[in-house]
Amino acid sequence: MSEIIIFGHKNPDTDAIGSAIAYSYLQNKLGLQTKAVALGEAGDETKYALDHFGLQHPEIVERLENPGDPVMLVDHNEFQQSIDGIEDAEILSVVDHHRIANFETSNPLNFRAEPLGSTCSIVYKLFKENQIDISQDIGGIMLSAIISDSLLFKSPTCTPTDAEIAKDLAEIAQVDLNTYGLDMLRAGTNVDKFTEEEILEGDAKTFEMGESTVRIGQVNVVDIQDVLKRKETLIHEMEKLSTANNYGLYLLVITDILESNSQGLVVGSQLEAVEEAFATGIENHEIALEGVVSRKKQVVPPLTEALS
Amino acid sequence: MSEIIIFGHKNPDTDAIGSAIAYSYLQNKLGLQTKAVALGEAGDETKYALDHFGLQHPEIVERLENPGDPVMLVDHNEFQQSIDGIEDAEILSVVDHHRIANFETSNPLNFRAEPLGSTCSIVYKLFKENQIDISQDIGGIMLSAIISDSLLFKSPTCTPTDAEIAKDLAEIAQVDLNTYGLDMLRAGTNVDKFTEEEILEGDAKTFEMGESTVRIGQVNVVDIQDVLKRKETLIHEMEKLSTANNYGLYLLVITDILESNSQGLVVGSQLEAVEEAFATGIENHEIALEGVVSRKKQVVPPLTEALS
Repeated sequence: MSEIIIFGHKNPDTDAIGSAIAYSYLQNKLGLQTKAVALGEAGDETKYALDHFGLQHPEIVERLENPGDPVMLVDHNEFQQSIDGIEDAEILSVVDHHRIANFETSNPLNFRAEPLGSTCSIVYKLFKENQIDISQDIGGIMLSAIISDSLLFKSPTCTPTDAEIAKDLAEIAQVDLNTYGLDMLRAGTNVDKFTEEEILEGDAKTFEMGESTVRIGQVNVVDIQDVLKRKETLIHEMEKLSTANNYGLYLLVITDILESNSQGLVVGSQLEAVEEAFATGIENHEIALEGVVSRKKQVVPPLTEALS
Repeated sequence: MSEIIIFGHKNPDTDAIGSAIAYSYLQNKLGLQTKAVALGEAGDETKYALDHFGLQHPEIVERLENPGDPVMLVDHNEFQQSIDGIEDAEILSVVDHHRIANFETSNPLNFRAEPLGSTCSIVYKLFKENQIDISQDIGGIMLSAIISDSLLFKSPTCTPTDAEIAKDLAEIAQVDLNTYGLDMLRAGTNVDKFTEEEILEGDAKTFEMGESTVRIGQVNVVDIQDVLKRKETLIHEMEKLSTANNYGLYLLVITDILESNSQGLVVGSQLEAVEEAFATGIENHEIALEGVVSRKKQVVPPLTEALS
């Protein structure tokens, strides 16, 4: 068997990259030959975390090398978020904390999903179940992933289990949880240096909902105006991306990580469904998403429902 | 929250019923209010096992009572094998050992799949992980499920883990593994009293493969001629069922559980795909399936491939 590659979703965030690195470390300790790779370049937040714990950015791969290659998926399962050619891969295992959809195999496999705040929390449990020690750098990147996905425990996706695990990982990683967490989150919020496309696509995922292909981007900031001041050029770029990729809907969620609040920008043909999903009106492409910080828990479910 | 119902697939076999009973027992010990139900009446083998360990046949339900009802799935995940109305259920968790396909949720959930020989082997691991004791009757029905799915450890789906777990469960259940196992398997092989439809549909599942809806039945016997002597009426019934249900293909796998060998009966429009899948010819609806005992591992994957 060739070396097994392990990767998170496209447009990788800290949990996608961190869980690939940690799960590969675990599998290798258990005797397999695996390698963490990434389906794209990490953002500033993730790079800050990798640097802080002296870890290398995983090799970037874009498509499956050969049909039938063995792979392991972390932090995603929907094929449209996965490596190009995933339909032809031999999927050996999946570790994930998202909804399950558009996923299919011919053979039985290991599939471990739990409704926790981050995939790294599940990977942490797998370390414990297999009685494998967590090194300082691996503990550090797992902690970073939990902080990232939970916005330092403020997201409704965060569970008491995540918070407990993060405490233990902070000790292993030898950092002060709050100081390190805020520094890491801030490192990812400097949007002024991003192009419009980078703001939109930096953390965007595609979802099939009803008959529509929906693209949902999310950008974290400390001041929503930093993004809204570029609204006109962003809308223009969203329309361009939608036409080029046949998106029925493009929604950008701009999240204030300190205030735990979001504002949405939206283009597409089914705006009434968006209004229905969030029970509020859209004015000139803009929609208030009060208290929304989690795409997975507060955006995808109501939109899926409204479009089905 | 209303009482959570837990069930295996339609046309329940011993693993579907046994894992529902055992998983419900576990969840209740963990503080939830759950009830094992069945999506149909158990066969003779399962009834033998239930009787032997003094367990009641679970209540039979046919459809989801109310949209949004909380459910847990065991021993299956494909929606067409599940309760009518599953699309509207709130699926809290799945424990399964089959391939994953045609499964979708709006929300994150617990999904635990492992490529083991029986769902009850995974449920056994969950008992251990949660440090819950297994009672004699629960141990007995879990053992019965492993024996059933593995045909007393002869099936290629059986792993060393299943065999180890069965040994421990035999002690808990206080039975001699081989004696009890053969008695239980034989209890399910008296086909003379079955109608043609009961032979075909008693353990049949539907699969979406490529563009086709494929129905695959399996019947265990100690002499394949017990079924083949009724070939003409069986073929007639298979054609009737295919027309009524729009099956593109109907395959009955007749398995000799002592010789670990099967013969197939097949009707449908894509017979070349079946010949390709098993690399042998069909003569007058009959095909030799040498060494085949596992639908999941030796029938579904090659057929899926040939039809895709």
